[in-house]
Formats: sequence, structure tokens, C-alpha cells
Amino acid sequence: MTIQITFNNILQAADSIKVHRTPVHTNATLNELASKPDAQVELFFKCEMFQKTGSFKYRGASNAIALLSDEEAERGVVTHSSGNHAQALALAAKNRGVKAYVVMPNTTPVIKKSAAKGYGATVIECEPNQANREKTAYDVMQETGATFISSHNNPNVIAGQGTIALELLSQVEGLDAIIVPVGGGGMLTGCSIAAKALNPNIKVYAAEPEAVNDCYRSFKNKKLVTNDVAKSVAEGLLTNLGEIAYSEIHNNVDDVFTVSEKEIINAMEIIWGRMKLCTEASSAVGLAVILYNKQFQEVIKRDGVKRIGIVLSGGNVDIVNATHLFQKFK
Amino acid sequence: MTIQITFNNILQAADSIKVHRTPVHTNATLNELASKPDAQVELFFKCEMFQKTGSFKYRGASNAIALLSDEEAERGVVTHSSGNHAQALALAAKNRGVKAYVVMPNTTPVIKKSAAKGYGATVIECEPNQANREKTAYDVMQETGATFISSHNNPNVIAGQGTIALELLSQVEGLDAIIVPVGGGGMLTGCSIAAKALNPNIKVYAAEPEAVNDCYRSFKNKKLVTNDVAKSVAEGLLTNLGEIAYSEIHNNVDDVFTVSEKEIINAMEIIWGRMKLCTEASSAVGLAVILYNKQFQEVIKRDGVKRIGIVLSGGNVDIVNATHLFQKFK
Repeated sequence: MTIQITFNNILQAADSIKVHRTPVHTNATLNELASKPDAQVELFFKCEMFQKTGSFKYRGASNAIALLSDEEAERGVVTHSSGNHAQALALAAKNRGVKAYVVMPNTTPVIKKSAAKGYGATVIECEPNQANREKTAYDVMQETGATFISSHNNPNVIAGQGTIALELLSQVEGLDAIIVPVGGGGMLTGCSIAAKALNPNIKVYAAEPEAVNDCYRSFKNKKLVTNDVAKSVAEGLLTNLGEIAYSEIHNNVDDVFTVSEKEIINAMEIIWGRMKLCTEASSAVGLAVILYNKQFQEVIKRDGVKRIGIVLSGGNVDIVNATHLFQKFK
Repeated sequence: MTIQITFNNILQAADSIKVHRTPVHTNATLNELASKPDAQVELFFKCEMFQKTGSFKYRGASNAIALLSDEEAERGVVTHSSGNHAQALALAAKNRGVKAYVVMPNTTPVIKKSAAKGYGATVIECEPNQANREKTAYDVMQETGATFISSHNNPNVIAGQGTIALELLSQVEGLDAIIVPVGGGGMLTGCSIAAKALNPNIKVYAAEPEAVNDCYRSFKNKKLVTNDVAKSVAEGLLTNLGEIAYSEIHNNVDDVFTVSEKEIINAMEIIWGRMKLCTEASSAVGLAVILYNKQFQEVIKRDGVKRIGIVLSGGNVDIVNATHLFQKFK
């Protein structure tokens, strides 16, 4: 595949989309927790849970909607997602007066269907498997002429997600590295292109749940692989790495690190308890890598990485369920 | 009592204390929830859960510590508190190299004792009643010469808390009103003096749990009264209104409104779920008044109040316990 996403695409996205410039938080206690006697670090958390619709996904969805031709806009958009991309695309479409169709498995909790409907989307239910999701979305495209907007494997979506790093590097001077959660890889790809364009010396690390480590394996073995089973508390990261992300990963990503389910939950609880931020589990993988991954700790010591930007990707979380996880993984 | 706290005391506090200038958050969904068809409002949330030690209490404690003479500093400080003031005073004292003694009931959870000890305080346990707390603190003063720093009934503490409103009014233009939680009344007094000095036309409202409505009764009946029973989910607001707060309340506070336990918990869950902020119950009383108190809604309609600043006072909360409350009060 030869889809090229340039830094210019990301600059254009930043100009055209209307998103919150989310704040960057720091925390003295977390700096202490993350530092070793011979490797002091400072952490800078980009707070995308404060983005519209509660996650970074609104950036990419807005950019994809902004770049539709008038004729495409007239016909609407379609996606399949039961998560943050569904809400983000629904609101972005609504704000341009574009019709949005969202295909969701019939097992999706009512609250998620309501959220997308609340933003004006038409929700279409399907059997809960990948083939049926794709088939149902395809049928909608055929019937309505709607444009399919992938949650991650779409260059305009990826350019929109890149604005996270664009902002972060303008908000914090002298970052040595950024660490970004990876599922389908849209955010990782956009952020890595933006970060390396602004500072070729910055390190870009991906953080992934061990339980769905297709990105890790694809990166290490230089061959795009998928997960047979996709199950993790980090529900936002279950998607397999996309083709566009894979085609870019060796250009701009320095390394991929994985963490266990327990490590993710423990990091999540620290973010809630210490930083007072309600984050979803997917948001916590970056901090989990920093706190618990020995290999990562060796790498940053070797590379002299001290100032690290961490993307907290979203805050759409079932509070009761999160609390059960905190207790289970104590 | 003729202790006078002036706006100048608050300006001096702002100059001398080293605190986080906490951010102000807005939320489109909450504006919608709080608006009526004939009374649109905009809400501005001052996020003191991001203050050092996780609550606004660090402001007042720092100011009290800063204003000690060198001789007083040498002898140390003492307080009785099992809550946010204990941690705040402990850290503020530590940062000036001052010894802090904190008297806590022997029923205080280990985690709260550890937090104060973690900031270097000496924790002294006592029987869990007001008389014994005061007696034990008095004994420490006698033995050590330490200065007693009340959590709320101390002019320097009050001046420190006033810096919240000083910041808020400089961060948000054209506020018509601020709403402040009230327990002992330190924050309310400091904020009301600062707000009225900056804008004599601004309305200052106090928000209080119905279950511990001594401030409401004292304000309405013009006589300082106390609660016979002090029990509310808003643990930070159990303290009776102090004498200094009472002596100032009719000068600068326009009205006091109360809310039920269920209303507090519902507002708290909205702050967690919609704003992605882990706040303690005491933080939620202001929003609860705005969303659920009919009398308040009439008053702001009558007075043309549209832009309202709300102090979210802190985020030191037991997550598991909070979740139980959310489920219980559904």
C-alpha cells in the first residue's frame, strides 16, 4: 500500500478541525513513582479524556468529515464501531449536518447505542463478529452511497489523530519521548509522524496490552500479524493493527512495549487516585509501561530519556466495572 | 469577635504561597443539564482536586505556615483533623521545615494516617469525640509550644482559601455568581471577601448538605447554631460553621442553599461520568444545588445570573466507597 500521510496533512487537520486543545497535567508523586535512583524522569500527561465525546477519536473523525466533498457529505458516512469512534463520528457528522450510520454488534450495551443515537446517528445492529460487521457496513454503503470511515485505517482519520502530538510538543518543551497506546494504530501513526517531523530526535514508543500484542509481534518480526483472540480490559485497543499503520510503523516508531492486564489496571487506579482523572483502561497502558516494563526502563536509561509525554486517550468508562477491576487486581 | 480579614490579606496570601493555579473546566453537556428553557446558564468549574495534596486546603495551610514568625516556626504547629486539612498542613509545614503534629481520632482509617505521616507529620491518636480532640491538641500545645492552626477558624487560613476566588475571577470574565461548598466556612469566607472586592455585583452563594445545615440555619435565623448530629456523605463539610465565618457571612454571602444526600451523590456521579474528574462528595454540593434546588433556580432567574463559577473543592475519595454510593443512590 502506498498511502502517504505527510506532516502537512496533520497541519491542515489542525487548521480545519474544531477540537478542544486539551490540557497537559503533571504530578509530583507520579514523577517519583516513575523515577529510579539512577534515572529520574518527568511525565507530561496529554488529557484527551477532556476532548469532545470523551476521547481523542473526535479529532480523526472531525478531519475525515471535514475532508468529504459536498457530494459525499450529502450521501452520509458509515462505520462499524461499538466504542469511542462511533460517538466521535456521530458528533462530527452532526456538526456538519451529515448523516451518520453506525453498525454495532447486537451485544453492545444499551448505553453505548444511546450515546451514538444521542449524537444523531442511525444505529444498525448486526451479529457480533467481524465478518458480519463488515458485511452490514458494506450493505449500508450500497444502499445509501455513504462513505465508509474506518476508525483507524483511513489517512484523514490518522492525520486528525496526529494533532495530539502537534499540540503536546507545543505545550511541553524539550520532550525526549512520547508514549502512545496502540490498537488499530491510527493515533500511533499520526502522532509518530507529527512528533518526528517536529523533532527528529524524539523517541516514539507504542504501548500495548500483552493480551493483544499483534503490534508488538508485527513490529519485531517485520510482518503484519493479527490476534486470534482479542480480549483485554483495554477495550479500546482490541482492534488489530491496520495496514496503513503497519506500512508507517518502521519509519517513525522506535519501539513497542507490552504490559499485563494487572499492570494496566494498577496504572489506571493510580491515575484515578493520584491524578484525580477518570480514565479508561486503554489510557493507562502508557503509564503501565513506564512503571512496570523493565525493558522499557533499560531502554530509556540507555537513551537518556528524561521528559516523557504520555497520551491519556480517553475517559469513557463504566465506573462500577472499573471499581470491580481495581478490587480484583489488588 | 472582631477579627477582620481584608482583601489585602488575600492578595498577600496569593503573593506568598506556592500553590498550583488550578484549571477551570467547562462542559457543554453540563451547561445543557443546568439550563432551563427560560434560563440558560454557563458553568465554570474551578478544579481544586488538582491542587497540591488533592484539595484547596493546601492554600490556607500554606498561608498560615508562611505567616508564622521564625520563633513560632521553630516550635511547630498542631491541628486536629482526619481529613484534607491534616495532609495540607503536614505538607505545608514540611516545605518550610516546620514540625507538624496532627491529632486524629483512633477510628481514622489507616490510609489517612499514612497520608499525613507520608508528608512528615507526627500523628497523635485520641478518642473519637470533639472534646477529646481539642484536649489532645491543647496538651500538645502545652508540651511543645506548637501553634494551633484551625482548619477553618483562623484568619490566615481563610485568607489563603480566598485565593481560589481571586484566581477564578481572573480566569473567567463576567461571572455573575460563584457557588462555594460550606462546612466550617473558611473557604466560603475567603472566597466571598475576594469575589465581592473584585466585583461588588457578583452573587456569592453557599452550598450545604441538608443533613448538616447549621450554616443555612445560622444564616436564615441570624444566630450561630450547631448540628446535634454530623453525618453526611460530604465528609469534608461535617464541621460546624466557625465563629469567624459567622461574623463575616452577612457581609458578603447572598444566600445559602441545601441539597439532599441523594442529590449530592447524583451530582458527584455526573462530575465523574461527564467531566471525567474524580471528585469527593463535598465537591459536588455546588453542582447539586444548581441542578436540583428549585429555590436556587428561581433566585438565579430573578437575578439574571447566567455565568456561574463552581468550586470543586477536592478529590481525595475512596473510589470503591464512591462506587457503592453511586449504586445505592441510583
